[in-house]
Amino acid sequence: MAQLVVTYKTPKDTAAFDKYYAETHIGLAKKIPGLRKYQINQGPITALAGSSDAYLIAILTFDSAAAIQAGLASPDGQAAAADLPKFATGGADLVLFDTRDL
Amino acid sequence: MAQLVVTYKTPKDTAAFDKYYAETHIGLAKKIPGLRKYQINQGPITALAGSSDAYLIAILTFDSAAAIQAGLASPDGQAAAADLPKFATGGADLVLFDTRDL
Repeated sequence: MAQLVVTYKTPKDTAAFDKYYAETHIGLAKKIPGLRKYQINQGPITALAGSSDAYLIAILTFDSAAAIQAGLASPDGQAAAADLPKFATGGADLVLFDTRDL
Repeated sequence: MAQLVVTYKTPKDTAAFDKYYAETHIGLAKKIPGLRKYQINQGPITALAGSSDAYLIAILTFDSAAAIQAGLASPDGQAAAADLPKFATGGADLVLFDTRDL
């Protein structure tokens, strides 16, 4: 499997972010081809070591890193990516990687 | 469910890090009470937006954020945490949060 981890930094207007994310972005992200599972944090993100300016963390599971790249390159993936600047006013880090179960 | 996400920054000696993580740290982390699933990246971590100085990302799944805190507070959790400075020479960010499936 593989994970796409999206870490949104604290936006300028958290209420506007929350509303847009819930009402618009989730629907777009769910259309990304190959998406197997989509989780976001519920409640606070607690930093135990180091620092975190994360406001919302989304973990999207796909079959492979190649599947993530293909999904994002599709029209629905491009639409979801193009949606980010509309609400992620604090910026966002996106990383993807294949995973191994230990 | 809940996730403990550990992002290790690039260590000073990657070969030493890899060896210590594989031979010592995984064994200690697996003893943390309440751990349900333990995944690490396999292969490269690709940054799509923003930047990433992540060298290794571990995602540890528990039943709840409270279970993560309890697990880390246990003797085995304390042992795993105390092990970090022995190999994480580039530093590490640890964040935990309850999750919601979308």
